[in-house]
Amino acid sequence: MKNILIINGHPNPDSFNFAIAESYKKGADASGAQVETITIADLNFNPNLKFGYQKRTELEPDLLESWEKIKRADHLVWIHPVWWGGLPAVAKGFIDRLFLPGMAFQYRENSVWWDKLLKGKTAHIITTLDQPGWFYRLSFGRPSVNQLKKSTLGFCGVKPVKVSYIGIIKNSDENQRKKWLEKVYNFGVRNK
Amino acid sequence: MKNILIINGHPNPDSFNFAIAESYKKGADASGAQVETITIADLNFNPNLKFGYQKRTELEPDLLESWEKIKRADHLVWIHPVWWGGLPAVAKGFIDRLFLPGMAFQYRENSVWWDKLLKGKTAHIITTLDQPGWFYRLSFGRPSVNQLKKSTLGFCGVKPVKVSYIGIIKNSDENQRKKWLEKVYNFGVRNK
Repeated sequence: MKNILIINGHPNPDSFNFAIAESYKKGADASGAQVETITIADLNFNPNLKFGYQKRTELEPDLLESWEKIKRADHLVWIHPVWWGGLPAVAKGFIDRLFLPGMAFQYRENSVWWDKLLKGKTAHIITTLDQPGWFYRLSFGRPSVNQLKKSTLGFCGVKPVKVSYIGIIKNSDENQRKKWLEKVYNFGVRNK
Repeated sequence: MKNILIINGHPNPDSFNFAIAESYKKGADASGAQVETITIADLNFNPNLKFGYQKRTELEPDLLESWEKIKRADHLVWIHPVWWGGLPAVAKGFIDRLFLPGMAFQYRENSVWWDKLLKGKTAHIITTLDQPGWFYRLSFGRPSVNQLKKSTLGFCGVKPVKVSYIGIIKNSDENQRKKWLEKVYNFGVRNK
């Protein structure tokens, strides 16, 4: 049985991203998978890695618990909006604070290479957009996807990483949103 | 005379990014340019745009002052490290909180297009890396650059945006760092 972890990176509980996370969870629950969730907006932590990588910052209990969930998971489902070509700052801070050397990866001594410490896991990025997915790819080089899929998850050994774009959100009506939620529910059912 | 604004996005005052910002400033001062600075680590603000775009969050005085500096500037020099293919969370939060509809851009009614409200400005991104610049481009698709150059500054009408990579930082010696600082000093002198 798959252990699925849903990581919701939207700061606002009234956002459509929360409906997406809920719909995925319903589908995954219906499939009989083990499902855990991290709602970044609910965590108590400082998103600022204030000493950078020069000095360690103590991890808050909510981050420690989140890391246990990540370690337990076979499949990570990241749900977030694209803001300025990236994740919302608080979701980026979740990564900055938690994906640390010795935890998510480890540089090898006197080498440009590194060990990938999250090998064996897979992921799915479900991202909401206020522009068409193809436009985001062609005009902007889909930076949030390259950031999360390649520079973060891939860097730590998570693969394959599936990507789904949902949008355009700002012009969407109820009917369209219902269809998107059904699509996401089916991702959950199939543990995609 | 050019009005140059240096925006330093590294959270840690002991980081090499601070030496870079200082060196650029010295060069720009020597050229006789007007130079202002924003050191994001020194600002008092919440990087989390907690209601997203559904409800406005009051801007803190430090953000209001930062926006005045941005408006006054002809040339924006962004200095930041690449963390997980993006800007540090606090620097991303500076953008999330400040680059708001009606300030940095404005969607047109019933249209996918928008007005770019920062037209007429130019920029230079000076970014530190722990990998070679070419590797960052080819393997990861240089997401932080696409994020800041295209999806943020370009989206708001800032162009052209020059990009300089400085690195590999983690293996660099004093001599190499001195050379980088001289290079950045010369960018300052030439108002690049």
